[in-house]
Parts: sequence; structure tokens; C-alpha cells
Amino acid sequence: MGAAAAGSANTAPTNAHTQIFLYTLIDWGYQGEIYPVNTRGDYVHGLKVYRTVREIPGPVDYVICIVPAHATPTLVDDCVAKGVKCLHLYTAGFAETGLADKMTLQDDLVRKARSGGVRLIGPNCMGIYQPGMGMTYAANFPRESGNAAFISQSGSYTLLLVRAAAARGVRFSKVVSYGNASDLNEIELLDYLADDPETEIIGAYLEGARDGSGLAKVLAKAAARKPTIIVKKGSTEAGKRGAGTHTGALAGDDSIWDSMLRQTGAIRVEDFEEMADLMTTFEFFPLPRGRRAVLFGCGGGAGVRASDECEAGGLSLPPIPDDLTAELARSLTTAGTMLRNPVDPGHYARDWTDMLERLDDWRGCDMVLWQIAPDIEALQTEIVLQYIHLMRLHTLKTLKGLSKPGAVIVHGAESDLGLQALIDTRKACAEARVPFYPSIYRAARAISRYMDYCQRHGRQPAP
Amino acid sequence: MGAAAAGSANTAPTNAHTQIFLYTLIDWGYQGEIYPVNTRGDYVHGLKVYRTVREIPGPVDYVICIVPAHATPTLVDDCVAKGVKCLHLYTAGFAETGLADKMTLQDDLVRKARSGGVRLIGPNCMGIYQPGMGMTYAANFPRESGNAAFISQSGSYTLLLVRAAAARGVRFSKVVSYGNASDLNEIELLDYLADDPETEIIGAYLEGARDGSGLAKVLAKAAARKPTIIVKKGSTEAGKRGAGTHTGALAGDDSIWDSMLRQTGAIRVEDFEEMADLMTTFEFFPLPRGRRAVLFGCGGGAGVRASDECEAGGLSLPPIPDDLTAELARSLTTAGTMLRNPVDPGHYARDWTDMLERLDDWRGCDMVLWQIAPDIEALQTEIVLQYIHLMRLHTLKTLKGLSKPGAVIVHGAESDLGLQALIDTRKACAEARVPFYPSIYRAARAISRYMDYCQRHGRQPAP
Repeated sequence: MGAAAAGSANTAPTNAHTQIFLYTLIDWGYQGEIYPVNTRGDYVHGLKVYRTVREIPGPVDYVICIVPAHATPTLVDDCVAKGVKCLHLYTAGFAETGLADKMTLQDDLVRKARSGGVRLIGPNCMGIYQPGMGMTYAANFPRESGNAAFISQSGSYTLLLVRAAAARGVRFSKVVSYGNASDLNEIELLDYLADDPETEIIGAYLEGARDGSGLAKVLAKAAARKPTIIVKKGSTEAGKRGAGTHTGALAGDDSIWDSMLRQTGAIRVEDFEEMADLMTTFEFFPLPRGRRAVLFGCGGGAGVRASDECEAGGLSLPPIPDDLTAELARSLTTAGTMLRNPVDPGHYARDWTDMLERLDDWRGCDMVLWQIAPDIEALQTEIVLQYIHLMRLHTLKTLKGLSKPGAVIVHGAESDLGLQALIDTRKACAEARVPFYPSIYRAARAISRYMDYCQRHGRQPAP
Repeated sequence: MGAAAAGSANTAPTNAHTQIFLYTLIDWGYQGEIYPVNTRGDYVHGLKVYRTVREIPGPVDYVICIVPAHATPTLVDDCVAKGVKCLHLYTAGFAETGLADKMTLQDDLVRKARSGGVRLIGPNCMGIYQPGMGMTYAANFPRESGNAAFISQSGSYTLLLVRAAAARGVRFSKVVSYGNASDLNEIELLDYLADDPETEIIGAYLEGARDGSGLAKVLAKAAARKPTIIVKKGSTEAGKRGAGTHTGALAGDDSIWDSMLRQTGAIRVEDFEEMADLMTTFEFFPLPRGRRAVLFGCGGGAGVRASDECEAGGLSLPPIPDDLTAELARSLTTAGTMLRNPVDPGHYARDWTDMLERLDDWRGCDMVLWQIAPDIEALQTEIVLQYIHLMRLHTLKTLKGLSKPGAVIVHGAESDLGLQALIDTRKACAEARVPFYPSIYRAARAISRYMDYCQRHGRQPAP
């Protein structure tokens, strides 16, 4: 298997494109030969630079194209002559410009490539992130593989989604940024992922589709087998203008998209943050028996907000019965605590295992959510961070050991301290494979929508 | 002027309450005598501990009470005997418990205090943060004074709001956490702040009110003089339970609150994050002439979202005319850029002064919003942080010099890298006194609501 990076005018090792597309392949130990290509020849990162793709001695499967748009027809000819299987066009300046001559240029490329047996990804896209074979376009993506896949018309959305989900422990099988979808498009990609044994969760960012009924069919197939989560953008007036410019897509009417997606059994989400929430939930949260949650942790006024957000997200917070409240109260030394649900134990800096286990035994609830609001603490920054660190040691372990599903929420984090506590806690949760959420509403909504999907598709909680 | 901290059973220097209420006064250089009080006497932080308030030699204006609830009647007697003006009851375990005997205890305290000429703050609250006189209950609140005030039934909300707003450069005149409002309540406090020459922006967190028409009257007075921003919580079913537990407030019907607040001319916001957004806007954003924004910065797929969020928040993104697009294009070297609005210059690492000044000259827009989405960058973490740092040096200065109002938005930041870029950029904006927002929607909504307030109250843009 061989890959060739077709250089832009500049193959200096510090050039941004050389960094993104060539150096990462070398650094990640890409599983095949790598051939840099540039008309000026020379060496880069210790590799010989070929003047054209035709000159490369061995067979070439995959070409990454970063030459300017006007030079792409020659490159496609070279790829056809060389027997290349797939050409990824990072290059932009085609149909997305809305200019007639650029659209014609794109159509010509596709015709040439098809008749020559070369598949195209793009143009105007980042290409493929597949950690299992050492292929990436972002140096700081995770190097380990996982079971989530994501395809996107927008390259930046792949960067946003992978990072947001990866920070919470989700890992990926395959991610494809496919830009203008001139050849390879969402239908083929979703069909592939529905069958792919390495993929258990599918996400897609769409701006439009050329074949609505084909898309509906493949989404129904995918969603019947695996959770399939969709962001659809570009359907407001302003968004349509943006999407038109961005990938040359025809955005369509939002309500039609909405009902189409609902019918397929796919989950439509607001944006990449909610997709990361759902991927995290499918990955780490065992299916609860119902939607009754206990919310445990320090709160005060934040507890009032907590109740509102739980209900808005689709979970309920049933009141704790008197006998259980009395039991819990025995674990406490502080006045000014609330034990009704949310359960507020008052202060940090101790082991709440006892209380959590009593709540786990309560038949009136189906899951235990641990909330942390670092910005409501009055003590010095360092002390609060230390408390939260200590709590994590005890409470994460306890949560993992409960009979009911558990999750961790750090909310209201806006200060530097709050954000630092969020980063630290999220990391600990990712390592412990406990689902983490950055707000109560986002937790409640993701869990509730996860349960909707499971109900619709006949998935049952483990006995 | 003297203050006395009435100790709990524990006056060890490392005790949490001693840290929060005594050490901070010493450390902040409180402008008066400080007298620790504890039945066991001794010394703490180098100060002599008195056994009772009566024993203190000098006059005492203000007492912070952290003794248990059952000991408070004696303390009130002592305060009356000593001629104390105001007693802040941090102590909880009164009306907020919903228990008849605790409600009676609270009523008895109020009766005793009133007849003896002592005003009560609380019980069940954090008290006063007034940096100008060196009084605080959180060591890491800003020590400088400012022109924003905030009052809150919930102590944690004061911690959340002050930190969220302070991170963006807002500073405070007076903050009062007044808890159960047994004596001093929101009506008196708002009336005071409406007249207070140190206060130019007023915020309040309410869970309920005993005197609705009195509240409406004082809010109308305050809002006519100063922007008055309200969070009202506890009006959903779950929230009502929470609020009932939390400060013993009667929450009331949400739609009644909504129309009452609208009539007064106050601004009702969702939560403390939106209040911080509005305080930031009133503090740093000159009033624009209209709602047409130019959104400038790196985007791609994030640009589609940007358009949606601007419109949802109440701003428009007018398309840039062809002649201006052509002018802007001359500043560019990269294909794959979008210049319609959002204006996406493609890559970082250069000075955009030229483009920003051309946009500033365009009569078709009223403000310039600079968007940064650190998580959409493909390069290595350190390089991206370095780019954003360099951009800040140039672009913040340029923004300040434009004839139109400018603001900075870091959005889509979910990864560790993204959050770090957000923290760094926010800090730079706070120092430069440029408004910062953590999402496009939040920016658009805050600016739009700020303009609503100014329109209603007849404020005009500077000529």
C-alpha cells in the first residue's frame, strides 16, 4: 500500500500543508510507503521528492492533492496513468465558489477520474483520519482507534467533533471530511459505515444532499444497526448563504429535513457539542431502566437550576422519601444542606461512598448523576482544586461500582478556576470510562435521547 | 468602624469558615477593627478572640454570624446590647428547612433584632462583597472596585456571577447575598442601588418575593436609571421544590413574573452566564447604530453555524457588496476563503488590520465581531496557541481603534486546547477592555438585548 502527497508550490518542512499532510503521516508511522511530490524535486523530512506522480517507482493507492485548482486536471491524468485508487483533493476553488467556470472545472475532474477508475474525495476537504492505519490530518488527534465514525461535508466540523468527543474518551474508527462530495458522497460513506465491523456509532455533519431518497434509505439502514447521529446545518436564510458558499450544497427546507431524519430513526442533534454528548453516552452509559435521576453534589442556588435543567432535558428528579432522607442525614454534620433531590451534602473533602450506595439501593431512581460546580466554592482556588481532586479519587471509583448507571457533570464553569476543574475532571472521567457532561441540561438531554433511540430500536437494559 | 466575626465551635486558622470570613478580612486589609469571637477565647491569625460580642472593647457596626442556629438568639441579644447596626447570619437551618419550629426561630430573631435596632442580612447567606472597603467572602474575588452591583437570594449565584463577569473584566461596587431575606430584602437593596452613585449596572437573582407590587415599583425605578438585569429561578415544578427548600421562598407562576419584569423595563435573562454577557456588554460595548454585524475570522463549517447563531440572537449579517469583496480579496493569498459575511480570511499568522479597517469603513454594517474557533485548526497545539497569541497582539489593538464597536468571540472551544485559547484570549480582552463572548449566539443575544434596553430607555449612540 502506498500513499503520495502531491505538494503545493512549497514543500519546506515548516510549510503548513507539509506539516498537516506529510509530516503527520511520517510521525504517526503510516502503514505504507510515502512519496512526496513536487515539480522542483529535492528532499523533505528525509524523503526523496518526486517531480510527478508518474515518476514514483512503486504502486500508489492514495494521493493527497494540495496543488492549486488550475493544476488539478494534470494531476488527475497522472493518477489515472499510475493506476491510483483514490485522490483526496484538499484543494479548494471549485463548485463552492458559485462561479460557472469553477463548477465546470470540478465536473471535468470527476468525468476524467471516473472514466480512468480513480475515486475522488472532495474537493475542498481535509480527507481521512483513520488512526488504525496511521493516517491523520491533525497532529493532536488521538492515536488510538475506537468504535465511533464521523463523516462531514465540513472539514472544520471534523476537527471540532473529534476533539470534543476525544476529550471525553471517545475514540474513532474512521473520520472522513468529504467537502464538495463531487464523487464519493454521504450515501456511499454511510452505507460503508453501516456495514463496517470496526464502527459501532455513526455521526454525520450534512449541509445538503443531492439524492434525498437515497440518503433516507441509507440512514434507515444505518440507524437500524447502529446509533446514527446527524447535524444538519445551513437551513436558515443566513445559513443557506453560508452553506452555498461553503461546499456548494443545496441546503433545502429545514422542516423537511427534520421529518425525513425522524422517519429514518436517526438522531438529529443541534450541533457538534450535542453529538459529542450522545457519542459519550452511547459509549460509556449503560442503559438505565427509566428516566428518574438522583442528582448528588454541592449546589445551593445551583440546585434550583439543576432541577429546571433536568426536567427541560427529559429526566425527572423524584423527591426522596422521608425514611431515606433520614438515613442520609445521619452521614452529615453540616446544616444548610438539602437532601430532597438534588441531594446536596454541603461540603467537599470527604468520602461520599456511603451516601451514594444508599441512593443506589433506592428503588425510586434509575441513575445517579454527580454534579460539581467549582465556581460556587468560596475557598481559595488551590484548596478547591485539591478538594475536587480528592473527591474524584473516591467518588469516581464509587460511581463505577454502583448497580445503576452513573455520570459526572461539571457545570457553571466560567472562571479560569472553573474551567481548570472541568478540564481535570473530564480527563479523569475519560480515563475511568465514566461519561462526563459540561452541563446538567446537556447530560439530561443526551441521556434522554439515548433512551429514546434504544426504545425505538428495541434495545433493553442489561438484566 | 468595627466588624466582629462571631466564630463557630472551631476557630482554628485552617477551619473553612475561619478562612472564608475572618482570614479574607485580614488579608484584604478591611478598613476597620476586626474582633474574632468564640466562647473558648484564645488567639487566631494573631488577633485576640473575645468570648462574647458584649466583651469587645470598641464599638461594633457589623457582625458575621457562623454559630449554629440554636445559638443565634443569644447572639442577637448580645448585638442589641452592644448597639450593633447589622448582623449577617451565614448560619442556615431556619425557614428554608420548611420545618415549623425553624420558621418560628427565624421569626423570633427578626422580632428581637427589629425591636433592638439591629438589621439582619440572611439567614442562610454569604453576606457582603464590597472590595472598596476590603470586605469579601471569597479570597479570589477581584480586589479592585467597579460599577456593577449584584444582589442574590442564593450565595452560590453570587460566586458564579462575580467570577464569570470578573473573568471578562467587569468589576463590582457591592454584592449582597441575602438568603432567606428575613429582614433586609430585595426591595430595600434595589432601592439603595438605584440611588447608589458607585453603581451603574444592577443585577439580581430572585427565587421569589413577598411583596410583588413593591418589587415591581422599585425595579421600574432602578431600570429607568440603570440597566437592571434579573435572573428569576424556581418557577418550574422541579425548580419550585428546589427553591422552597433553598431559601424558603414562594416561587410563583413563571409567566406572571415574566410579564411583571417586562413591564418594569428590567432585562430578564436565562441565567448567570447571560447576566455576565449583558454586564460585559453594558460595560465595554459602545452602543451601535444598528444591528448589522460583520463577523470576521477563521470559520469554514463553523461559518454556517455562525450565520445561524447571529440571526437567532437578533443580529443580521448583511452580504458584503461585490466591490468591497474584491477589495478584501486583494489582501488575500489563499483559496478556499469566504468573503461574503462571515468574512473568513483563511489562515492565521498575519496582521488583519487592513481588512478590518476596510470593513469598518463599510456603511452597510454597524459593528465588527472577531471570531476565533481554536478547535478547528489542524496544526499542532503549540503552533495554534502561538498564532492566536500573535493575532491578539495585532487585532485587539485594531479593534479598539475602529470607529464602530468591536467584540471578540472564542467559540466551539471544547478541547483542552480550545479552552486554553479561550482563557488566554478572554484575559487579553479583559485587560484591553474589549467585550469577550464564549459563543456567537451569546454575543448576538447580549448585544441585541442591550440595544433593546437602550432603545426603550431613550439612550442614543455617541455621535
